[in-house]
Amino acid sequence: MDTKMATGYKTAGVAAGIKKNGEKDLGLIVSDEPAAVAGVFTQNHVKAAPVLLDQERIQSGTCRAVVVNSGNANCCTAAQGMKDALAMARSAADALEIDESEVLVASTGVIGEPLPIDRIADAMQDLIDGCAPDTFADFSEAIMTTDTVPKVVSKQGKAGGKPYTITGTAKGAGMIRPDMATLLVFVCTDAGIDAERLKESLRAANAGSFNRISVDGDTSTNDTVLLMANGASGAAIESKADRQTFQGVLNDVLLELAKMIVRDGEGATKLVAIVVRNAESAENARTIADTVSHSNLVKTALFGEDANWGRILAAAGRAGVPLSPNNVDIYFDKVQMVAQGSGRGKDVEAEATKVLKKDEFSIVIDLNAGGESASVLTCDFSIDYVKINADYRT
Amino acid sequence: MDTKMATGYKTAGVAAGIKKNGEKDLGLIVSDEPAAVAGVFTQNHVKAAPVLLDQERIQSGTCRAVVVNSGNANCCTAAQGMKDALAMARSAADALEIDESEVLVASTGVIGEPLPIDRIADAMQDLIDGCAPDTFADFSEAIMTTDTVPKVVSKQGKAGGKPYTITGTAKGAGMIRPDMATLLVFVCTDAGIDAERLKESLRAANAGSFNRISVDGDTSTNDTVLLMANGASGAAIESKADRQTFQGVLNDVLLELAKMIVRDGEGATKLVAIVVRNAESAENARTIADTVSHSNLVKTALFGEDANWGRILAAAGRAGVPLSPNNVDIYFDKVQMVAQGSGRGKDVEAEATKVLKKDEFSIVIDLNAGGESASVLTCDFSIDYVKINADYRT
Repeated sequence: MDTKMATGYKTAGVAAGIKKNGEKDLGLIVSDEPAAVAGVFTQNHVKAAPVLLDQERIQSGTCRAVVVNSGNANCCTAAQGMKDALAMARSAADALEIDESEVLVASTGVIGEPLPIDRIADAMQDLIDGCAPDTFADFSEAIMTTDTVPKVVSKQGKAGGKPYTITGTAKGAGMIRPDMATLLVFVCTDAGIDAERLKESLRAANAGSFNRISVDGDTSTNDTVLLMANGASGAAIESKADRQTFQGVLNDVLLELAKMIVRDGEGATKLVAIVVRNAESAENARTIADTVSHSNLVKTALFGEDANWGRILAAAGRAGVPLSPNNVDIYFDKVQMVAQGSGRGKDVEAEATKVLKKDEFSIVIDLNAGGESASVLTCDFSIDYVKINADYRT
Repeated sequence: MDTKMATGYKTAGVAAGIKKNGEKDLGLIVSDEPAAVAGVFTQNHVKAAPVLLDQERIQSGTCRAVVVNSGNANCCTAAQGMKDALAMARSAADALEIDESEVLVASTGVIGEPLPIDRIADAMQDLIDGCAPDTFADFSEAIMTTDTVPKVVSKQGKAGGKPYTITGTAKGAGMIRPDMATLLVFVCTDAGIDAERLKESLRAANAGSFNRISVDGDTSTNDTVLLMANGASGAAIESKADRQTFQGVLNDVLLELAKMIVRDGEGATKLVAIVVRNAESAENARTIADTVSHSNLVKTALFGEDANWGRILAAAGRAGVPLSPNNVDIYFDKVQMVAQGSGRGKDVEAEATKVLKKDEFSIVIDLNAGGESASVLTCDFSIDYVKINADYRT
């Protein structure tokens, strides 16, 4: 990983006592100067209080700070939930001596329990005292729930000859599906770009990354992706070429984070790209890729390293879009296991099984019906997924 | 269980060597006289050869026999698949000395491997020699795949003062979802009823039973429910009152079989009814019940006996229909855990947890938004589900 981080930001993470295990659970990102900001949020009809608050505040197009807790989602917490989200932002604003409307919030963790707002307030000064430039590691650790590793990606671009950096951090290991991935993502850049263009860039990058991953087919009440741009590098994104470059770097950062999330999916042992090719429409391709990517039968077969292409074809067949099984070819990486809807026998299967033993591979479903494609990143479905989620609150 | 079986049928089950473990894998039902017949089939776009053959043959409205194998789905087997399905029917027809068009077929098991038709032909005479009245037990055993117990239900009704019996047998433990449950079901009655009315009755009973259950959200390529009526009891279903009684008995048989399937779901330890009440429309109620019933996060929490109502509300919220979380009440049986979108605290949760420890209970999601309801039967999602499905073909 490139270790140069976006400049003009300070971050920190501390243990405020929200998580039962005493690990870091409160994080802060502060921009030295007001930053342009854009966000995308969960499409779940049940939205946590911090999501509702951010959706309102982000309309101004600028912010200075984001304060995030893990261990408690502040969701389904009735009127108290919004009061606590407001208090969490105010607590950070007061300590930072900025306006509370410039502070966004995010929460992740157990649903339905009141946010321990006193613990957050008590830890706020420690959090701010701990803020430092050039690292996102503590912050990233503080936003983890069932994640096993913190996730930070940093990449550079140039605009008008001046270099800039985009640094992103993400959490999310369960409740993940393509529309929309359940996670918290915070991306900071020291490039300068206006809020409207930032929003367009974020939507495009999100569509190709966090909206194309699946861990378990569930979506959360707290999904939030925020992108801040403070211009600290002096690089301004204005010309069409600069915008394209910026989009490319942003896409790379988000896609890499998305892959990290799937690879760290609850109980996951494999990262698998489900690619649907030559569909009649892009919509059909997406629908089939989505359905296959969260089929429990496909995912348990992946865990078992079983080249059970019948389950793949059966899942494609139940996606609800027309499909002629006798036209379908299926590949595991480059090994063609199925030709025109039929298996190619034990020798080919032995080759396919070798692919399945890898940590990362593709399953290509070629419909031979048109020219459109789509792909989804997914993971296998293991015994540990069940263990993690059966015991989550205990 | 009532042990009186539908009269005028003979059944058998033998081991033909299709299953690797040497267990029974070939079954036959023969009606002494031509029977009216109705069927419903998978809506998967990938349909196994026996499904395609039955869909054609059933249009005549009559049949004499059904031959079924487990251990191989005869699906994704190209042109050879239909040849083998035809040969399987012909082999039974020849031995029974009836017309091959009067024989229906069904297969269940691994997808994508050629049907060992020679073994089926070799075992046919044994199968027919083993045929006996008054038992469905051997047949039921012969159609099992990952089922742990055979499933036979028999119930009586009366028409014009004459008693009749409806006997049903089913298999199916995975690849189950509401639309449509993945399974094979064969129902025989000695009542007399014309094929058109039989079809209507079957559709109605199926809608309230096999289309309302979920094990893992996958659907199969081989789903088949066949209902035969041979009139051997002398009871004829003609008057409106008789038709209503017949529908009631048929509903009971199918619902009981459906419950047996969910209770025997792969790895299942609990039978849980997901009930959505007071929705704005029946469609909304069904959509939410379906989404909650196959949420992996809900199902793993059920396995963990964790009253994690936040996951239930979050799954309801992602169903894609409007929902006001602050109006939602959630009950575990009669324990109201959530009032107006908020949890009712630790004491109530302790009561709810007692409900979750039961083998069978209801989760009621009251939307307080209208007057429509729907329910789905589901099961929990256990470590054994993953073990069963990771190792299925090995």
